[in-house]
Amino acid sequence: MAFTAVTLRDVAKHAGVHPGTASRALNSRTRALVNEATAKKVLEAARELGYRPNPIARGLKTNRSETIGVLIPDLTNPLFPPIVRGIEDRLREEGYTALLANSDNDPTKERLLFETMSDRQVEGFILATADREDPLVEDALAARVPIVMVNRTIETAIAFAVVGRDRGGSQLAVSHLVGLGHTRIGHIGGPERFSTGKARYEGFVAAMEGAGLEADRRLIGFGEAFTEDEGARVCRELLAADNSMTAIVAGNDLLALGCYDVFAEEGLRCPENISVIGYNDMPFIDKLRPPLSTIRIPHYEIGWNAADLLLLRISDPDASPRTVFLEPELVVRASTGPPPQPLSGTARSAAAGSAT
Amino acid sequence: MAFTAVTLRDVAKHAGVHPGTASRALNSRTRALVNEATAKKVLEAARELGYRPNPIARGLKTNRSETIGVLIPDLTNPLFPPIVRGIEDRLREEGYTALLANSDNDPTKERLLFETMSDRQVEGFILATADREDPLVEDALAARVPIVMVNRTIETAIAFAVVGRDRGGSQLAVSHLVGLGHTRIGHIGGPERFSTGKARYEGFVAAMEGAGLEADRRLIGFGEAFTEDEGARVCRELLAADNSMTAIVAGNDLLALGCYDVFAEEGLRCPENISVIGYNDMPFIDKLRPPLSTIRIPHYEIGWNAADLLLLRISDPDASPRTVFLEPELVVRASTGPPPQPLSGTARSAAAGSAT
Repeated sequence: MAFTAVTLRDVAKHAGVHPGTASRALNSRTRALVNEATAKKVLEAARELGYRPNPIARGLKTNRSETIGVLIPDLTNPLFPPIVRGIEDRLREEGYTALLANSDNDPTKERLLFETMSDRQVEGFILATADREDPLVEDALAARVPIVMVNRTIETAIAFAVVGRDRGGSQLAVSHLVGLGHTRIGHIGGPERFSTGKARYEGFVAAMEGAGLEADRRLIGFGEAFTEDEGARVCRELLAADNSMTAIVAGNDLLALGCYDVFAEEGLRCPENISVIGYNDMPFIDKLRPPLSTIRIPHYEIGWNAADLLLLRISDPDASPRTVFLEPELVVRASTGPPPQPLSGTARSAAAGSAT
Repeated sequence: MAFTAVTLRDVAKHAGVHPGTASRALNSRTRALVNEATAKKVLEAARELGYRPNPIARGLKTNRSETIGVLIPDLTNPLFPPIVRGIEDRLREEGYTALLANSDNDPTKERLLFETMSDRQVEGFILATADREDPLVEDALAARVPIVMVNRTIETAIAFAVVGRDRGGSQLAVSHLVGLGHTRIGHIGGPERFSTGKARYEGFVAAMEGAGLEADRRLIGFGEAFTEDEGARVCRELLAADNSMTAIVAGNDLLALGCYDVFAEEGLRCPENISVIGYNDMPFIDKLRPPLSTIRIPHYEIGWNAADLLLLRISDPDASPRTVFLEPELVVRASTGPPPQPLSGTARSAAAGSAT
């Protein structure tokens, strides 16, 4: 201690906090962003060690913008706000703020936003926008830009990511429907270009086969986007292709909402005539008519952990990339029930009969 | 033409577009952001006029970040994504991008985000976060930072704003309920610190008085936030205070959703025992149980017009401040119906009887 100046890092270590937290706590302008007890601990550590902020070091620090860019593929999907909330809460603990932008799943827009944010000197990115093969992510990794993928991940490179265990989620959905007695189960998948769309589809097929059932190609379709309109379009196709289907596993809640629209058009009652289960447990779907059964992913924790990994990556550029999988959970509401009894011919012709 | 260089502004004028659009179209990196026909028109104009981009001028242009900061008070409120969509679409026409941040209605966080974005050199702000008295907005106006308020506005200064006509919206809600036969109508207002909360409350009182009805203080309460939890809390208070209430005008849809929760707790059927009408027409509420009657505000247009005003303000710092009011619209769904017939005593005691 006699020969070396006390550094911010020393103070942080002594207080048992992240250096970013210590920095915020020591700066009166930003102190309010740090938990009060933590700020007190840091200030005490600084006093004990005789820490004096070095104005030159502080000048150099201005390269640290303490902002993070967060790219979201579709702000109108209620899945993302709780993820963003988790990201913001974790970042805030270290005095970082999040700047968000909405890419509409458009690669050109995504790259422009990425470059715009880079020009604005964000220190790293959390990307909810990754395709399974994603040149932007590959370029960013090659340039050693700190990035963490959230919700979706890529296949073509090794990177930091926090995602739900999507294959396992589809397994939960299929098991629930099989337990109710369904055998003719369809799947409305999301786009296969996203890891979520592909893994949920693969999980569906594996679970059907595991249950000794056929994953009938005629009962499987894919939305071009995770939207209500695409869910309705694909639902119409599956209903037209085969009238034995009694249940649908949707790749997300918005696709399932599209099924609701088609059921209403067709005079099908849910779950009496046909069951549907969503994926995500987005806000408000517990209040739908009928309340939607779904697979819950821990949105907030996914966001929180993504921010945590990014802070790790920023503070330690040599940290090993890792993918954190969080566990999904079955939420049974009123959109899933036993299959209709086949009175005459197929289930759905009986249902259509009762509707007229 | 012989003595003066052709400028970007000349090209833009010749092509009949905004200078920002011309700039985007002339830069190969950003051309994809401009409508193809427009880009062609600009390139032709540049060729006709013999425009040569001036590298020094381009250097100076880097002060123009072509980014706009958008502060949102609560990303989990589904009201805001459609507003953001309108903002982004208008900005994109001029080659601008939006950086978003979520303030949680926290003035400290708001100011920090504002400063963070200013440091990142945004050219202006769209604020969905204004309080009626808002020191941050006043400071920004005093510093001549281009800002436009969206959805809410301030009272303590003259500024650019695009908002719904909130008093008129409450008038529509009350008229609808009075037309159904209700006389004992309650109001769950949003926070009075926001222009939306105050104007909708004032509109409610004025409409009740206009209909010759009493705006009974016991049937009026205010949420501390525009949230489902606060709606439930105030709804419980109003029900406990007076059992003659047969309908509620809620200050927004989330407050109305909180009423749904309390109705379920209390065994009240909506609309048979009690009606409720929301405000905003946020996504998905048409699929609720029951589908929520509400006052629709034109979210997308509100966002689009806010961005349009900001672009005007940026290109012409002397433009006169103005407030654009957009008209609300009544949307009748299934959460409002005639008041219950008073069989014995009050309406609600009859309802409670039938529920047991």
